[in-house]
Amino acid sequence: MAKLPRREPYPVHDARRYLEPGPIVLVSSAHAGARNIMTLGWHTILEFSPSLVGCMISRGNHSHRLIQESRVCVINLPTTALTDETVKIGNTSGAEIDKFDAFGLTAIEADAVDAPMIGECHASFECRLHEDALVEGYDFFIFEIVAAHVAPVPAHPQTLHYTGGGVFMVAGKTISRKSLFRPGML
Amino acid sequence: MAKLPRREPYPVHDARRYLEPGPIVLVSSAHAGARNIMTLGWHTILEFSPSLVGCMISRGNHSHRLIQESRVCVINLPTTALTDETVKIGNTSGAEIDKFDAFGLTAIEADAVDAPMIGECHASFECRLHEDALVEGYDFFIFEIVAAHVAPVPAHPQTLHYTGGGVFMVAGKTISRKSLFRPGML
Repeated sequence: MAKLPRREPYPVHDARRYLEPGPIVLVSSAHAGARNIMTLGWHTILEFSPSLVGCMISRGNHSHRLIQESRVCVINLPTTALTDETVKIGNTSGAEIDKFDAFGLTAIEADAVDAPMIGECHASFECRLHEDALVEGYDFFIFEIVAAHVAPVPAHPQTLHYTGGGVFMVAGKTISRKSLFRPGML
Repeated sequence: MAKLPRREPYPVHDARRYLEPGPIVLVSSAHAGARNIMTLGWHTILEFSPSLVGCMISRGNHSHRLIQESRVCVINLPTTALTDETVKIGNTSGAEIDKFDAFGLTAIEADAVDAPMIGECHASFECRLHEDALVEGYDFFIFEIVAAHVAPVPAHPQTLHYTGGGVFMVAGKTISRKSLFRPGML
């Protein structure tokens, strides 16, 4: 089982550092005594401030209803330490099992929303539903990240990036091109 | 200058293989004699069929207007062979320069849309505007990918994933967990 990383408060406007590279995330939610986790690859940053992120959460997922009712969730960032758990979460239904119990994950109370964080993840972003105009037509939720918790080390976690077909790309080395940026673009 | 990879027609419903991992992309567009390219990290797959992708294209970008007028664009996938060009495209304005000329990129006519593809990219996804309900409020365009062109090799291109601050994560190794997937989930 993965250890619980020591996480610290993190500025919400800089969530892009962890989400823009496109990792698979684990979305945790709760409503009326039920809780769940889903694996999600279809998300995008939409704004720095307010810190907005859009997520396509298909109505076929048990989490869709929990989030629509509670209007909150937590976006958790797993690394390769949780590869198998991440896949198993995506291949089971919260209508049948409690995924925290089934996969030995630690539910930690969030600061600002009534949904559990996953303690084993590198980061957790607490989210409130900000815009539901495209939920009906596209299952697309826009959340505002209202609190963030990130492990300061490693600086560049080994995140998982899904390509379909059961195959993940693992985050590789980092390169800087800071010298090519205009100051206002950094 | 990067070489032109040999690209082949590719099934549009499987665009997720290249876009879901979250790479930086180059969006090319044209309208009324003007053309442009922008660098984009804020996008997400939204559906397999129709093949939908959502892109946050800020109205501060010259491309925003071109795409709103023409209602088409091409999402091109650069690799590390185009790192410097990708950064420079993101740090210049199409109101001032022609980026194809300025950065030595090859404009190739698309099959289905009136916007130029970038020949040096690993893949190009031809897009038509599908839904503009969130353009006014969030600069969020939903496109349908109507044709796709992908270089068959390498199977896993070295894409760039932006973390902010001038730093990119480069796609690393791939791992398979196919054996943990339910058949219907592959």
